[in-house]
Formats: sequence, structure tokens, C-alpha cells
Amino acid sequence: MTLLREAVGQTLRLARSEQSRTLRDVARQARVSLGYLSEVERGQKEASSELLNSICEALGLTLSSVITDVSLEIKARESAKLSVVDAA
Amino acid sequence: MTLLREAVGQTLRLARSEQSRTLRDVARQARVSLGYLSEVERGQKEASSELLNSICEALGLTLSSVITDVSLEIKARESAKLSVVDAA
Repeated sequence: MTLLREAVGQTLRLARSEQSRTLRDVARQARVSLGYLSEVERGQKEASSELLNSICEALGLTLSSVITDVSLEIKARESAKLSVVDAA
Repeated sequence: MTLLREAVGQTLRLARSEQSRTLRDVARQARVSLGYLSEVERGQKEASSELLNSICEALGLTLSSVITDVSLEIKARESAKLSVVDAA
């Protein structure tokens, strides 16, 4: 099952990596704890909508651009699962 | 500030309305309480990723199609806010 929080986490982690920034840096700027951001990025915690906005802002990204990337990530995961079913 | 849960709620409510289905019907099929679904649709509660999937399934929609619509909704809200700023 594809989970929204996993796709959100992967998208946020990728965006941070592309900017060569540390968890600590982005967490500080977003005013969330390092542990919180780490759990969100690993898809282990649902980010609240307010904190998701803070994280997007810290990354210099709009919420819409992040959610568009999330939708593409989910689509890719759904397609991968369909392929597995087809191959079975 | 555009909130993800508000865009998710509006997208789910629109999808349900287009199918002419009641809150009760979708909530029962998704195995969530009517109050929970109502709060999610009104953007007052963050849906957990697991229950969001149950709601999408009850509506016969893939998570990716719902999140794509959510991204468009957020983009429209962001544009509307920018227009307000431009006009100020």
C-alpha cells in the first residue's frame, strides 16, 4: 500500500539533498525539532499541515510544487506495484 | 496560508459529491466514523495516510489521482493569494 506520508517524506528528503543541506539546518529554519523532521522524511510520522508548510518554506519551495512532486512519486509507486502484479 | 488538509478535504468532498454519495455511505465503506470523514472533508482533521487510502478506495479512486487533484487545488489557492497580493 502506498502511503502519503512516505511519498511526502521521500520528496522532502530529496529536495533537501538536492540543496546539500543538513537535517539540522532545515529543522532549525523550519522551527521543528531535528527528530521530528527526520521521522517525517523517513515516512514514520505524519507532518501536520502547518509544519509541512514551515518545512516547505525552509526549503524555499511552495507547497504546490512539493505536492506535485509527491503526486508523481505516488504514481510511480502505484505503477511499480501494478508491474509486480502483472509479473506474478 | 494554504493547508494540505484543507485541499485534501475539499478534493474528497468534491469527489463524493460527484458520485452523489452520502457521508454515511462513504464512511461505512471506508470503515471510518461519519464524524471523522466529516472533519477530514471540512479540513479540520489531518487524515492518517492509512485512513486516507481507505477513503480513496471507498470512492473508487487511486491515491495518486486524489493527490494530483489536491496539488491542482493548492496551486489554485496559491495563485488566488498571489492575485490578492498583486492587487494590494
